[in-house]
Amino acid sequence: MDLKQMIRTIPDWPKPGIQFRDITTLVNDADAFAEACRRLVEQARDFEYDRVLGIESRGFIFGSVLARETGKPLVMARKPGKLPAETVSEEYALEYGTSKLEIHRDAVLPGERVLIVDDLLATGGTTLATARLVEKMGAKVAAMLFVIDLPEVGGRKNLEDKGYPYRFLVEFEGE
Amino acid sequence: MDLKQMIRTIPDWPKPGIQFRDITTLVNDADAFAEACRRLVEQARDFEYDRVLGIESRGFIFGSVLARETGKPLVMARKPGKLPAETVSEEYALEYGTSKLEIHRDAVLPGERVLIVDDLLATGGTTLATARLVEKMGAKVAAMLFVIDLPEVGGRKNLEDKGYPYRFLVEFEGE
Repeated sequence: MDLKQMIRTIPDWPKPGIQFRDITTLVNDADAFAEACRRLVEQARDFEYDRVLGIESRGFIFGSVLARETGKPLVMARKPGKLPAETVSEEYALEYGTSKLEIHRDAVLPGERVLIVDDLLATGGTTLATARLVEKMGAKVAAMLFVIDLPEVGGRKNLEDKGYPYRFLVEFEGE
Repeated sequence: MDLKQMIRTIPDWPKPGIQFRDITTLVNDADAFAEACRRLVEQARDFEYDRVLGIESRGFIFGSVLARETGKPLVMARKPGKLPAETVSEEYALEYGTSKLEIHRDAVLPGERVLIVDDLLATGGTTLATARLVEKMGAKVAAMLFVIDLPEVGGRKNLEDKGYPYRFLVEFEGE
């Protein structure tokens, strides 16, 4: 199955010049969703990890299925103010200004290996902030998994520069 | 397994007098997460449905696993401005003011039956707004599934008044 064809492109969204890659059409097709999850599980087999971490909120969709299908616990990285217990937080750059991601301080234990999952790799800003959160806890990033990679935006290079292993299922380049 | 014991209670969050029921501890335990998903799948067997709809963002966690484990497509109900294609939206009341939920106009087809999933039933405001979205598309609510019910807040009664079938795994009452 060509998963790429199941991802809808919305031109000029959220602003002119951006081709938005929309995974809602992929998950809203039972066969495509099953195939994407099967391939993520297959990619995850290359790594050893203790917990799966999903990044809010589309990362929850693939992170939760991957955690369940591999029998691992699920950790949630959330936007500020959403997690009720004690958190650690990390800032990342937006086009204008900054934002933050948080995880619960007790969600990851020192020495554990964490598999980070999100739907899409663009600049890698949120993923790298999540990696810093994991490392703040004394844990280690096992790998980063994405459904979509947009290599032209530079995320892949940013992850490679830091030495993080990553995998993706589909890439869009110059389209 | 007593799933209730896996849900952490945070007193006075997000404000004094509220006992917040925190499912991050449940999903971050592989056995408890597996058991909760197994029970949701079991509850879902009582209903016939064409799509699973998860409500942003904790509803994505259980909705996506349920969709995958039952071989159904996943529809996302999201907060305003997050969905890139044409949407329909519905307002719901907050304590002060209102908010909105959206789904893609082409995400549900007329005549289909939709199973709505969220982590927690409180007043039922977001769930009922989601039901109205489903009905706006000419589709039907098959049932509503929750991990947690807080019956004292009144959601159960609100769903019953409208005639929607619902199920939950755990309830907290007067605790």
